[in-house]
Amino acid sequence: MEGEWILMVTAKAPSNISVIKYWGKRNEALILAVNESISITLDLNHLCTTTTVAVSPKFKKDRLWLNGKEMSLSSDRYQNCLREIRSRGDDFEDDEKGIKIMKVDWMRLHFHMASHNNFPTGTGLASSAAGFACLVFALAKLMNVKDDMSQLSTIARLGSGSACRGLHGGFVKWVLGTDKKNGKDSFSIQLEDEKHWEDLVVLIAVVSSQQKEISSAEGAPLTVATSPFLHYRAKEVVPKRIVEMERAIRSRDFTTFAKLTCADSNQFHATCLDTSPPLFYMNDTSHRIINCVEKLNRHEEVPQGAYTFDAGCNGFLFARDRKAAALLLRRLLYYFPPNPDTDLSSYILGDKSILKDAGLENIDDVEKLPVPPEIRDKVPAQRFRGNINYFICTRPGPGPVLLSDQGQALLDPVTGFPK
Amino acid sequence: MEGEWILMVTAKAPSNISVIKYWGKRNEALILAVNESISITLDLNHLCTTTTVAVSPKFKKDRLWLNGKEMSLSSDRYQNCLREIRSRGDDFEDDEKGIKIMKVDWMRLHFHMASHNNFPTGTGLASSAAGFACLVFALAKLMNVKDDMSQLSTIARLGSGSACRGLHGGFVKWVLGTDKKNGKDSFSIQLEDEKHWEDLVVLIAVVSSQQKEISSAEGAPLTVATSPFLHYRAKEVVPKRIVEMERAIRSRDFTTFAKLTCADSNQFHATCLDTSPPLFYMNDTSHRIINCVEKLNRHEEVPQGAYTFDAGCNGFLFARDRKAAALLLRRLLYYFPPNPDTDLSSYILGDKSILKDAGLENIDDVEKLPVPPEIRDKVPAQRFRGNINYFICTRPGPGPVLLSDQGQALLDPVTGFPK
Repeated sequence: MEGEWILMVTAKAPSNISVIKYWGKRNEALILAVNESISITLDLNHLCTTTTVAVSPKFKKDRLWLNGKEMSLSSDRYQNCLREIRSRGDDFEDDEKGIKIMKVDWMRLHFHMASHNNFPTGTGLASSAAGFACLVFALAKLMNVKDDMSQLSTIARLGSGSACRGLHGGFVKWVLGTDKKNGKDSFSIQLEDEKHWEDLVVLIAVVSSQQKEISSAEGAPLTVATSPFLHYRAKEVVPKRIVEMERAIRSRDFTTFAKLTCADSNQFHATCLDTSPPLFYMNDTSHRIINCVEKLNRHEEVPQGAYTFDAGCNGFLFARDRKAAALLLRRLLYYFPPNPDTDLSSYILGDKSILKDAGLENIDDVEKLPVPPEIRDKVPAQRFRGNINYFICTRPGPGPVLLSDQGQALLDPVTGFPK
Repeated sequence: MEGEWILMVTAKAPSNISVIKYWGKRNEALILAVNESISITLDLNHLCTTTTVAVSPKFKKDRLWLNGKEMSLSSDRYQNCLREIRSRGDDFEDDEKGIKIMKVDWMRLHFHMASHNNFPTGTGLASSAAGFACLVFALAKLMNVKDDMSQLSTIARLGSGSACRGLHGGFVKWVLGTDKKNGKDSFSIQLEDEKHWEDLVVLIAVVSSQQKEISSAEGAPLTVATSPFLHYRAKEVVPKRIVEMERAIRSRDFTTFAKLTCADSNQFHATCLDTSPPLFYMNDTSHRIINCVEKLNRHEEVPQGAYTFDAGCNGFLFARDRKAAALLLRRLLYYFPPNPDTDLSSYILGDKSILKDAGLENIDDVEKLPVPPEIRDKVPAQRFRGNINYFICTRPGPGPVLLSDQGQALLDPVTGFPK
């Protein structure tokens, strides 16, 4: 394989948020979870990773740039992903450019890979899940891999457990599997596509925090090793919840969906607390977000909202419909007004049309929000200004997509290095 | 029964802090716990309730004053306690005063009762536990009840579950029992007295909080009704921990004691989080106290401290010995310096001699505390000024005591009303 040519593919992949939680592995090397999980894929337009992968005979080694900074590929996570995807590459021919790559060539060729999140990394917005899903998807396209999304998900899984669910849009289940040797049957399947439940609104509260949290990769093995609750949860609680959640999603039963989503988030954090030493991911602001949703639901009798928190303090909220989302947003903005001189359009990101539904035009409307009726009779409610950085309003979305516009590529088509 | 005489008894009873936690009842009316618990009785000199009970033919009804304010006795808790203790009263004769009370008279005579805590109520410092233990003990003395402390503990239990453990000093276990009809065998026993483990130092961090918490009485039944974890904990986890904790206490094995105490506190809070809606008792300050102890222990390799939190945000800390207590206090004061213009002697209450061990004479010494060595290499540690109201340094202490000095009575010996 010689020449100056560069073959390049750019893809976008979404984040996903689990509603039945994945925490802890039964096999660390193969990244096989202790229990099944279910997630919702979030709209690419609001939260996504863009990845460009390129191959060329002139590349001397595999290289990766994340948000412009070169990263080491030495970890098992990257090495396992790259090895697996290479082994599935197929013959490729481009007569026009005079490129011909045989199946066996993929084992010798090197990749340049560049990735970028349209949201801040390390904020707990599932960047590694989106990142590995995107990398595997882009490489598969580049190498003419014939596998379907579920097969590809077993490779993404080797990078990051939750990335396994990032290959599909809509509502996704990560199946436990039984293959102990290779974990080939521990993949994700789409339960329903992103059009299935159009009423559902997702609101993300990105919480301001100065606390340094223990990463999922560090924390989850501690829970597996020390929490008596985790094993009971995996064996006795989750299997039933998976069945109930699948049914709730299938029938768009928001009441059951909300009950299960909240209970499973809380139970996941309970196993973190049951770890020695204990893991705290939620903070006082997270607790206040939960109380806000619980109070609204009690007041409205039929649940209007649900919450889930990953290994971080950000709240992922679901609203029954646009009307419920407006109710919820008004309350959240009552409790958590932004710092002075914040523009409303930089405080509510994503689908800003929610502001109109909530009857909010500018920051003055936020300041003048009335006390929520559910707490009107009690002591004056406190407002926690500045405790939330911003909100993102979004919805369920599709899986990874190829970008045909080369202008969006992150690598230079001539040099193969980041633009 | 006629006359103007008043018979009066005053007693002091201690608070206790559980190290294997009680949360949830298998029988609400009888207050029978879902699992056994173990507690340490705290020194009366630093945390106690004083109660005066009086009986007189001229009293028209049972009356109770808590910290000077009259309280209703209509709840089952009071009614059950009073009924049980009355049924155990014995003949009493005082020739000098010309008082003769027969066993049956106790059912018709009325009591005036006044109680006072030497620490703020509602701060989560187990005031109801000390209160009911003291009330039952004082009434038993007044009525010449012949029962031993374990038998009396079944009556205190009817007032408040944790009061059951407040009749003994030192290290106390609340036995599960099997009697379903009356709960007569669900009592407390002393494992070891307060002299058994003299090295042990107790430090209480009273956390500033504006959050209104759900009381144990309201919260625990919610956990029983909704948490899948609670039942697993009661059945599979606690029985083993009880055995291990008894052995650790018996052999003064601080390393095991610390491991179990911390794990059980965290697991109790995990069941609170696993409740629908979730119960949060710890806040960010509580989490920081935990991290402070965990970091110290990791740094020292052999555990020097342990922590436990009840249904509130205050931290109850144990130190291996005076030296460890000094290490711990220096760290706590580093992270949590008091508000400006606070006097050190009003910030450290109880046994203030700990300050000398910690090398702290005044508030300037607190301000100048060095960064704890375990975090020296990391990012500069934050200090959380004003997040703790005050500390109390104390130790294991004896059970309830009678006060012979009538000057300390809370009721007027002539009128029978609060002084």
